[in-house]
Amino acid sequence: MTPGPEQPPANDPTAPTPRRVGRRPGGPDTRGAVLAAARAEFAARGYQKASMRGIARVAGVDPALLHHYFGSKDRLFLAVLDFPLDPRTVVEQIVAGDRARVGERIARFVLTLWEDRGVRERLLAVLRGAAGDEEVAAMLRGFVVGELVARIAAGLELPRPELRVELVLSQVIGLAMARYVVAVEPLASATVEELVPLLAPTLQGYLTGG
Amino acid sequence: MTPGPEQPPANDPTAPTPRRVGRRPGGPDTRGAVLAAARAEFAARGYQKASMRGIARVAGVDPALLHHYFGSKDRLFLAVLDFPLDPRTVVEQIVAGDRARVGERIARFVLTLWEDRGVRERLLAVLRGAAGDEEVAAMLRGFVVGELVARIAAGLELPRPELRVELVLSQVIGLAMARYVVAVEPLASATVEELVPLLAPTLQGYLTGG
Repeated sequence: MTPGPEQPPANDPTAPTPRRVGRRPGGPDTRGAVLAAARAEFAARGYQKASMRGIARVAGVDPALLHHYFGSKDRLFLAVLDFPLDPRTVVEQIVAGDRARVGERIARFVLTLWEDRGVRERLLAVLRGAAGDEEVAAMLRGFVVGELVARIAAGLELPRPELRVELVLSQVIGLAMARYVVAVEPLASATVEELVPLLAPTLQGYLTGG
Repeated sequence: MTPGPEQPPANDPTAPTPRRVGRRPGGPDTRGAVLAAARAEFAARGYQKASMRGIARVAGVDPALLHHYFGSKDRLFLAVLDFPLDPRTVVEQIVAGDRARVGERIARFVLTLWEDRGVRERLLAVLRGAAGDEEVAAMLRGFVVGELVARIAAGLELPRPELRVELVLSQVIGLAMARYVVAVEPLASATVEELVPLLAPTLQGYLTGG
């Protein structure tokens, strides 16, 4: 359960940050043990209460190793669920820029992202997992509220900002279900540029009321 | 495979229409055989191309019996999927009344319907089934487009009416997923009356552009 000699030591501050969550820390057994421990801890305690330290203890690895390879709890969680995108990037994309066009930005970002088949399939796998398993749903819930909803809601000026962000989320999830799972036509074949002007006012309305 | 003597004959025009799709025609074996045959036919041919006559043949029953007990293809399909509501009723509720308040009507209708735990669980089971099984998704797709989308779209005056109805559908599905499956707070605990004014402009905008 210790990293192999070819791996950089966990406490080397000059070691490069790995670009992908998928990089192996200390061989496949360690990565597998860490992900299994993380999954168990997230399921048992919920996303918010699970800690990097606790996960490291269950996996039998040094907490510094965990931080070194997964960076933070949210990134470890993304690896556990094989979640196709990093909410920090999403939030940056959404929050930056003209507030009056945030709805259009979200619509275009989400629709463009889903054009990537790999991203789409992993996102749908997460939704399917949540729909079929309350444990997965509970993990996802804590993560979504803590990492995504809270961050976007912090920038809003209307009453009940979390509720408004969650309505955006509901439209985004439902669009994925209707377009790719039930796949009703003509929605399934509509282009991104056809859909953006129809969706933008909805998302804009939820977030800024206009 | 013939109805028992206590059942009304299939060709008796004075026989009452059964109130529930769940009533047994000719004993449990016949009902089971009809539902199994219908499921197979819907899966093999799709909802639109499957016929009552073909289903009766596969089930080994008289087509008149099928019509007598299930009424029509859409009602038989609802029984196959254990779908919790009849789209005809939905369409009537939505289309009737002031066009300028259709968004509010749909929001209140859907949210109120889901307060019924049984309805909600069967609806989510259908969505879960579609997400996990392409055959179920394909059946649902044909049914939704043919029985629900087409009927509502027929009354709209804007361009691309089917696409607009499907955007409403996407918001309705996504709301169910976010509120009851991922169950993010505060959305999961928000009341119907809190949500109606937030959702109504979205649905209204999709259907009438205003």
